[in-house]
Amino acid sequence: MNLYYAPDIAKTPFLPEEESLHCVKVLRQKAGDIIHLIDGVGGLYEARIVIPHQKRTEVEILNVTENYGKRNFKLHMAVAPTKNIDRFEWFLEKATEIGVDTFTPLNCRYSERRIVKPERMEKIVLSAAKQSLKAYLPVINPMIDFNQFIENVTETNRYIAHCYDMDKAYLIDVCAPKSDVILLVGPEGDFSKEEVQMALNNEFQSVSLGDARLRTETAGVVGCHLVTIANHK
Amino acid sequence: MNLYYAPDIAKTPFLPEEESLHCVKVLRQKAGDIIHLIDGVGGLYEARIVIPHQKRTEVEILNVTENYGKRNFKLHMAVAPTKNIDRFEWFLEKATEIGVDTFTPLNCRYSERRIVKPERMEKIVLSAAKQSLKAYLPVINPMIDFNQFIENVTETNRYIAHCYDMDKAYLIDVCAPKSDVILLVGPEGDFSKEEVQMALNNEFQSVSLGDARLRTETAGVVGCHLVTIANHK
Repeated sequence: MNLYYAPDIAKTPFLPEEESLHCVKVLRQKAGDIIHLIDGVGGLYEARIVIPHQKRTEVEILNVTENYGKRNFKLHMAVAPTKNIDRFEWFLEKATEIGVDTFTPLNCRYSERRIVKPERMEKIVLSAAKQSLKAYLPVINPMIDFNQFIENVTETNRYIAHCYDMDKAYLIDVCAPKSDVILLVGPEGDFSKEEVQMALNNEFQSVSLGDARLRTETAGVVGCHLVTIANHK
Repeated sequence: MNLYYAPDIAKTPFLPEEESLHCVKVLRQKAGDIIHLIDGVGGLYEARIVIPHQKRTEVEILNVTENYGKRNFKLHMAVAPTKNIDRFEWFLEKATEIGVDTFTPLNCRYSERRIVKPERMEKIVLSAAKQSLKAYLPVINPMIDFNQFIENVTETNRYIAHCYDMDKAYLIDVCAPKSDVILLVGPEGDFSKEEVQMALNNEFQSVSLGDARLRTETAGVVGCHLVTIANHK
């Protein structure tokens, strides 16, 4: 099934330039072909190609499914990008496949990477969303300093995964279902003790992601999966 | 913490050549340094370097922990390698971090890769095991044809994850805890209907890994994580 991203499809029956090129040049689709589109905000469209064009392919909408794959909770993953960017990008791809609503790259005390390319992140997330048939495209926030971020959190259920030896519950045992969740995952060198304390002061709960010692990017995927399962109960 | 792999350490107090070189040349460790070793079968050793040597570093064992991180179940992941080998290697790394006892690369009807390099797989798994402090090194079986493999399964709890529309339970809901498990994950094009039927005929149960549409390698990691969580209950 060929899926295209057309954020304005509800307003205008055309594929954006990049998607038009991919559709016509790469996938060689022709007039009359049936394709599927996502608008990134829950809409899944079935459409027929009317005029294939490398820059502006016109389609006819045949069918619309609103709120496709809508979940009864929202998950915000705030994660410190890894020194090796491939590992962070891998996290973005896998977490998008499993299901995330918002990504925020965190700049922490011990971060080994303090710069990320938003365009690159968006490209990876869009590709993963299309591949895994997600009609909702995850929102990617700009990188932000931990201290500034922690005081402006809006989610009700707040969890921070860290390796310090303190009272921690296994995320799946405490994660509140059917309610918005934010999970913080630190850099290779973990959050600083001060950062953990700041989170606790801002109504975050310390959680464990299991017994295994995980890399940052693996912890991100495992954490995202634990929240998904907690909502399945 | 510097961890080395020394399969024969219980018999002889020396690091193997490759680990000796890494220890002395790369990490520049000296006589008197305290290091840790795993034997791959559950032993975690604390040792002191007596004679650093590029080919044969001698150590003095200070402390031994047997059955380090031993779990009350064994997990066998039999997965069809992906066309893009990076994705399969990523699965090996992440599944090892989360916890797997045996890997078997499957050659299926619709497999897009029918050859893997055992040495390469072993290198990745060893590196991930050391990084995540696993004293038990996962066993890697040679690639095998699905038909031949399916009739010689020994595990009691047998699950096959596929995308066909048939009665399927969510793995975490049916996975028997504290008991050996085998989970089959197919190639990009899924198992063939005949392969699924063969599995069912051999006492396998069809399972779902959740609502999301996952790539083969993501399904492998998610499946491995679901079995781990089922054993946490």
